[in-house]
Amino acid sequence: MLTLSDYQEVIKNHFENINLDKQPKNLYEPISYILSLGGKRIRPVLTLMAADIFDGNYKEALSAAVAVEVFHNFSLVHDDIMDDAPLRRGKKTVHEKWDLNTGILSGDAMLILAYQYFEVYEPSIFQALAKLFSKTALEVCEGQQYDVDFETKDDVSIPSYLKMIEYKTAVLLGAAMKMGAIIAKTSEENCNLIYDFGLNLGIAFQIQDDYLDAFGDPETFGKQVGGDIIENKKTYLYLKAKEFSSPDQQKQLSHLFSIQPTDNTEKIEAVKSIFDESGAKEATKKAIETYTFKAFETLESMSISEEKKDLLKNFGKMLMGRNV
Amino acid sequence: MLTLSDYQEVIKNHFENINLDKQPKNLYEPISYILSLGGKRIRPVLTLMAADIFDGNYKEALSAAVAVEVFHNFSLVHDDIMDDAPLRRGKKTVHEKWDLNTGILSGDAMLILAYQYFEVYEPSIFQALAKLFSKTALEVCEGQQYDVDFETKDDVSIPSYLKMIEYKTAVLLGAAMKMGAIIAKTSEENCNLIYDFGLNLGIAFQIQDDYLDAFGDPETFGKQVGGDIIENKKTYLYLKAKEFSSPDQQKQLSHLFSIQPTDNTEKIEAVKSIFDESGAKEATKKAIETYTFKAFETLESMSISEEKKDLLKNFGKMLMGRNV
Repeated sequence: MLTLSDYQEVIKNHFENINLDKQPKNLYEPISYILSLGGKRIRPVLTLMAADIFDGNYKEALSAAVAVEVFHNFSLVHDDIMDDAPLRRGKKTVHEKWDLNTGILSGDAMLILAYQYFEVYEPSIFQALAKLFSKTALEVCEGQQYDVDFETKDDVSIPSYLKMIEYKTAVLLGAAMKMGAIIAKTSEENCNLIYDFGLNLGIAFQIQDDYLDAFGDPETFGKQVGGDIIENKKTYLYLKAKEFSSPDQQKQLSHLFSIQPTDNTEKIEAVKSIFDESGAKEATKKAIETYTFKAFETLESMSISEEKKDLLKNFGKMLMGRNV
Repeated sequence: MLTLSDYQEVIKNHFENINLDKQPKNLYEPISYILSLGGKRIRPVLTLMAADIFDGNYKEALSAAVAVEVFHNFSLVHDDIMDDAPLRRGKKTVHEKWDLNTGILSGDAMLILAYQYFEVYEPSIFQALAKLFSKTALEVCEGQQYDVDFETKDDVSIPSYLKMIEYKTAVLLGAAMKMGAIIAKTSEENCNLIYDFGLNLGIAFQIQDDYLDAFGDPETFGKQVGGDIIENKKTYLYLKAKEFSSPDQQKQLSHLFSIQPTDNTEKIEAVKSIFDESGAKEATKKAIETYTFKAFETLESMSISEEKKDLLKNFGKMLMGRNV
C-alpha cells in the first residue's frame, strides 16, 4: 500500500499526462484549465486506495479515478455558473475567464469525457462502473437542486438538509471508493461496505465544513471564517440553532439572517453566540462524531486485514483532522 | 416492418408512459416539459427502424431510442440557453419558463438519464451503445463549439462548415441508426454502413435546411423564410456565394451581412439575388443531391433484402421531401 501523498503524486502525474490538446480549442482549453487548478484530488485518491485495500492493483483503477475527478470538476464548473462565483481555487472560474456559453459547453463535454474514461474496462466491469456513476451523478444533480431550493425555503428540516449534503457531496465519495472495490473484483458486500464508509465520512466532512466555517481557526481553515453567516446560509449549525433556541433567540437569529451589513464583525459574533448558547455548536460537533463513527463502524464488518482497516481509519482521521 | 407513422406512434406512446414524476420537482418538471413538446421524433424512429431492418425486434430498441431522444432534447435545452432563444416548438424554452440555473441543471440531468436508458442491455451491448453514444455526444459538443466559433470568424471554409454540420447534427442520426443495428446484432459492416447512411442523409438534410431557409415555400417550411439572412448566418449558401461571386458581389454581400435594418424585405431579396446569380443556389442544390446520393449508395453494399433497401430509400426521400 502507498501512502496518501504517494497516491496524490500518482494522480498528479497522471493528470499531467492526459492530453486534452484537441480541437476545437475553445472547448478543450477550459477543460485543461480547470483540471490544472489542482486541488487535493481526494476523490481519485479514494478510488486508488480502495482498489489496493481489496487486493486489486491501483494502476488498474487509474482510469476510473480520472473519471471521478473529471466529473467532480464538471460539477464545479456548472455550480460556479449557478452560484455566480468569480473564483475557484484562487483563480478565475471558467465562465469568468471565458464566458457563460463556454462554461456550459465545456462542462457538458467533461461529463461525457468522464464516461469515456470507463471504456478501458471489460464489459461487465464497465457496466457496473457506468451504472454506479450515472446513479451517483444524477444524485449530485438532485443534491444541487435541493441546495438551490433551500435558498428560498424557510422551513428546511434537518433530515432534508442531511439528504441534500448526502446527495450533493457524500455519494461521490462513496462511489469513488466503490469503484476501486469493483475494479478489484471484491465481494458485493465489501463493495457496499466501502460505499457506506465513504458516504458517512462524506456526510461527517460536510457537517464539519459547516462547523469550521463558524468556529474554525482562521489560520488553517482556508476559507474566510464566517462566510456562511455573511451569506445567510442555512447550514447545519443554523438549522440546529433554530431547533434548539428560545422564541426570543429564534427571532434574533431570523433578524440576523435577514440583514447584510457593510461590516459583518458584529453580526458574525452575535450569530456565533446563538450557535453556542442554543447548544447548536455542541449538537453539530456530536453529529460530526456520529457520522465519523458510523463510517468507522462499517469497517468492522469488512473482510480485510486489521492493518488495512487501520489504514482506512487513519485516512478518515486525517480527513476529519483536515490534514489532507 | 411498421410504417413511419406507426413508429412515431410507438415512440409517442412510450414517451407518455415514462414516469418523471420524481423529486426534486424543480429538476424533473422541466425535463417532462421539454420532452412533452413533442417534435417529429425522427432520431428514435431511426433507431427502431434500423433494429427492424436488421431483423431485430424494434421493441428491444425502445430504450436506446429513448436515450437518443432524451440526449437530443438535452442539447436543445443547453443550445437554447447559448442562443438566448425564447421559444422552442412554439413554446417557452426551459430557461425562459424557469431560469438559467434550471436550464443548466435539468440539461445535465437529461444527459445522465440518457446513459441510464442503456442499462437495460446486457454488458457487451451496453458497452457498445455507451461507447458510440459518448463519442457521438462529444462530437455534438464539438460541433456546437465550431458553430459558436464561426459566428465571429470571417474566413469559414466549406470543409470546416461541413465538419460543423456533420458533428452538430448528422452524427446523431448516424448513431441513432447504428444503435438499432447493434441491438439487432447484425454484422459490424452493416453497423458501419447504416451509420454512413444516417450520417450522409443528416448532412444532406442540414444543407437543405440552409437552402429552404432562403428558397423554401413559406407555406410549408415551418420557420420564417429568410431567418438566416436576417441573422447574418454563415450558411452553406452564403459560403458558396462568397466563393463564387465577383469581387463586386462579394463586397455587396459583406455589406448586406453587416447591416440589421428594421425592415428586412429588401435585404433578403438582395441576398437571395446574389445567392442565385453567383451560382450558390445551384451549387447548394447539387450538394444536397450529392449527400443524398452518397447515403443511398451505402445501401448498395448492405446485406439486406431489396425490399428493405427500398424502405430506407423511401424514408430518405420522405425526409428530404420534408413530408416527415
